[in-house]
Amino acid sequence: MKIAIYNENFHEQTEKTVKKIYPDGIHGAIKAGIADDEFEIDTVTLESIDKLTDEYLNNTDVLIWWGHVKHGEVSDEIAERVANAVNKGMGIIFLHSAHFSKPFKKLMGTPCNLTWRENGDRELLWVTNPSHPIAQGIGRFIKLDHEEAYGEPFGIPEPDELVFIGSFQGGEVFRAGCCYKRGMGKVFYFQPGHETYPIYYEKDILKVIKNAVLWAKPIYRTNSLDAPNVQIPLEEIL
Amino acid sequence: MKIAIYNENFHEQTEKTVKKIYPDGIHGAIKAGIADDEFEIDTVTLESIDKLTDEYLNNTDVLIWWGHVKHGEVSDEIAERVANAVNKGMGIIFLHSAHFSKPFKKLMGTPCNLTWRENGDRELLWVTNPSHPIAQGIGRFIKLDHEEAYGEPFGIPEPDELVFIGSFQGGEVFRAGCCYKRGMGKVFYFQPGHETYPIYYEKDILKVIKNAVLWAKPIYRTNSLDAPNVQIPLEEIL
Amino acid sequence: MKIAIYNENFHEQTEKTVKKIYPDGIHGAIKAGIADDEFEIDTVTLESIDKLTDEYLNNTDVLIWWGHVKHGEVSDEIAERVANAVNKGMGIIFLHSAHFSKPFKKLMGTPCNLTWRENGDRELLWVTNPSHPIAQGIGRFIKLDHEEAYGEPFGIPEPDELVFIGSFQGGEVFRAGCCYKRGMGKVFYFQPGHETYPIYYEKDILKVIKNAVLWAKPIYRTNSLDAPNVQIPLEEIL
Amino acid sequence: MKIAIYNENFHEQTEKTVKKIYPDGIHGAIKAGIADDEFEIDTVTLESIDKLTDEYLNNTDVLIWWGHVKHGEVSDEIAERVANAVNKGMGIIFLHSAHFSKPFKKLMGTPCNLTWRENGDRELLWVTNPSHPIAQGIGRFIKLDHEEAYGEPFGIPEPDELVFIGSFQGGEVFRAGCCYKRGMGKVFYFQPGHETYPIYYEKDILKVIKNAVLWAKPIYRTNSLDAPNVQIPLEEIL
Repeated sequence: MKIAIYNENFHEQTEKTVKKIYPDGIHGAIKAGIADDEFEIDTVTLESIDKLTDEYLNNTDVLIWWGHVKHGEVSDEIAERVANAVNKGMGIIFLHSAHFSKPFKKLMGTPCNLTWRENGDRELLWVTNPSHPIAQGIGRFIKLDHEEAYGEPFGIPEPDELVFIGSFQGGEVFRAGCCYKRGMGKVFYFQPGHETYPIYYEKDILKVIKNAVLWAKPIYRTNSLDAPNVQIPLEEIL
Repeated sequence: MKIAIYNENFHEQTEKTVKKIYPDGIHGAIKAGIADDEFEIDTVTLESIDKLTDEYLNNTDVLIWWGHVKHGEVSDEIAERVANAVNKGMGIIFLHSAHFSKPFKKLMGTPCNLTWRENGDRELLWVTNPSHPIAQGIGRFIKLDHEEAYGEPFGIPEPDELVFIGSFQGGEVFRAGCCYKRGMGKVFYFQPGHETYPIYYEKDILKVIKNAVLWAKPIYRTNSLDAPNVQIPLEEIL
Repeated sequence: MKIAIYNENFHEQTEKTVKKIYPDGIHGAIKAGIADDEFEIDTVTLESIDKLTDEYLNNTDVLIWWGHVKHGEVSDEIAERVANAVNKGMGIIFLHSAHFSKPFKKLMGTPCNLTWRENGDRELLWVTNPSHPIAQGIGRFIKLDHEEAYGEPFGIPEPDELVFIGSFQGGEVFRAGCCYKRGMGKVFYFQPGHETYPIYYEKDILKVIKNAVLWAKPIYRTNSLDAPNVQIPLEEIL
Repeated sequence: MKIAIYNENFHEQTEKTVKKIYPDGIHGAIKAGIADDEFEIDTVTLESIDKLTDEYLNNTDVLIWWGHVKHGEVSDEIAERVANAVNKGMGIIFLHSAHFSKPFKKLMGTPCNLTWRENGDRELLWVTNPSHPIAQGIGRFIKLDHEEAYGEPFGIPEPDELVFIGSFQGGEVFRAGCCYKRGMGKVFYFQPGHETYPIYYEKDILKVIKNAVLWAKPIYRTNSLDAPNVQIPLEEIL
């Protein structure tokens, strides 16, 4: 399985606290955390984002996306390419502030807005769908000691399947694990992962991401998004 | 519009605290609280449940259901009649512990189980779908000073539309406002309303129930749930 | 209620057959066909598309969209504006070949591809959801003597509600009436309406469009698609 | 994987045509048709239906169900047991006239009614979801030379995922492949299989059933459908 992890890799270069938590970048932490003999994992940063060609994406099974303040520097062309790749079958996992990334907004068709508050709240991520592949191996909830609070309303289409709801000390709730199908591909949004907390080292968070990678693995890919003229030979169907 | 409110009316007769809060029964409080010139509201208790004949239900637009410890005393026949009436077009609103009522379980096809904890927690009911008819007139959240905590996983099918998520002081979350369509009829489940707290006097809770009644109003009713043999005159369609 | 009908109005100007069927344009036929004392109906063509400013859209309740060969001449900016207006609460109805229009694709997040065949097949539009507001007043099916055949797979997200399935003489089927919610707004896609057949004079087709307009009427509109930082006063919630 | 195939096995015993087509019963044909080294397949008929104990069902991964005129002879107790087993995680596939079986109706919560016509129409089963596991290996459509026509409206909840739509020579359409989740278990309804046509020997039909068995395989099973009182240790979450 070919996995790619995109991380804008900006906070890690510019903020001491973040650099200390993620010396190898968020992408590096996730890469190490989900390592598996079956996975060949590549990483991509904003600096190297031109790697994300059609050919590269067509050869990627699942793409993981972390972005925050640099969404605007991802070109519309690349965002389109990523969304098309999903529609052609590639799986994709959007993490945390990637709710506002161009490819996620393109795939949802909605603003993907939310409310937020940064006070280092304790978060509980409750499993709402215990038999979903993405929730396997997780107990009733995952506890994070500190996380940025995200709050409803979350401006997304009604998820096909809701796997997690997060609750924060301040009382906010958030649909934290949401599954969609877009074209031939699968999409998972997963809320945890503010850059100032060491969340991508948490065993259960990594398990969810790994489960999601396996769940999002393509089972059918198409080459074309066109609308062909198709004649039906009448002798065949009548 | 013809509304019927079913309440088992047991706690009000047997527990002092509840009697004090609801001297006219939970049904009485809701009846008063949603009163409207357009509504003709009847009430039914376990004692008078035989009122719920097919004829009665066929003439009811929306039925509201509150039950708790007396679910077992509602006969299978009546539960079937209620579920059939919904499938024929009647709207229905299940409140609080009615998650375990026979008609709700019949309409869902699932166990409708949950976890619970009775410590008088503060609950916040967050609106997840601000443009849903049921959420109109409600702010970002409804705050209840004291409520029984209900927790996920809630054993229901994925809701067609999720309107509220509740969060409790202890950290639990719960899909607290869930919309479904069953046959020709609409179903709304709404979690607030433990009998030991004066929840059905809260302005916003009553507004939600009233909104739900209007939302669930039948727009088309059918007489039959049968599967008829229907011949297509070939000359008509070819 | 303020309705706007957008039609690219190209075939009517360039093809004799179409001009003959729709001397006042497809927009003119629909405008006349759904006329109602409650409706104030404006029409917009590709020539006058710059009318579709934010202000115009914010003052429109429901927009109806017909386009075919001129999708590419609708600017990305206008498409974005229309999609944003829906997310802010405006209702929208996409007709026939508008499945490939920019705003529809933006709102769906998928390619919206399909197969097609133009042999003037008889189509039957079957009601799959008889109690849906959009199907009111329609019998078991609508019969069109001649229509372009559209075929599955239709590259859309699973509809929130499916109201019609079309079947063509050649045997194809197509999800012909699909409901979605996007942000605060409602979206309805309705397949009938190839320009070379007088479909927008059919009583039942007009009834469906009118029903859809009423269904899509905004009940709540928002000004902002932003993600605000919202502090929760602890004293308020604890 | 442990598979069980229930077939009422009545037509095969009482009607010569059916006996000739299915000398080993419909269950026998399906058993042979989906055989696989990974599968241990047991068959159950109305005569031996008491086999379907809780223990048996807890040890079954996926149950396939075919019934028609003998739905009424399946006891409510067994129907309840089957529905509970699904809610606890067992997969289930309902074939053809099993749309009116007790367990299917219990799991759906709706009448599951439809229209029907028995004229040996040609049916085309169109794939609406090409990347769904159940559609793998199937082309654009499956053609059946003769099948009983089923027609919409089909009285089911909106499917979680729609995989096939059938179209008949007479023009009817039918949601022929429908996926649901109920509790921990997966449900697939698949329309083809009238007893007077040799449908369960068709390679593609068997492929769909086998795909569905693999898709419905439990990934998590629970023992209990109860609603437990769960205390949250405050020190753990705060």
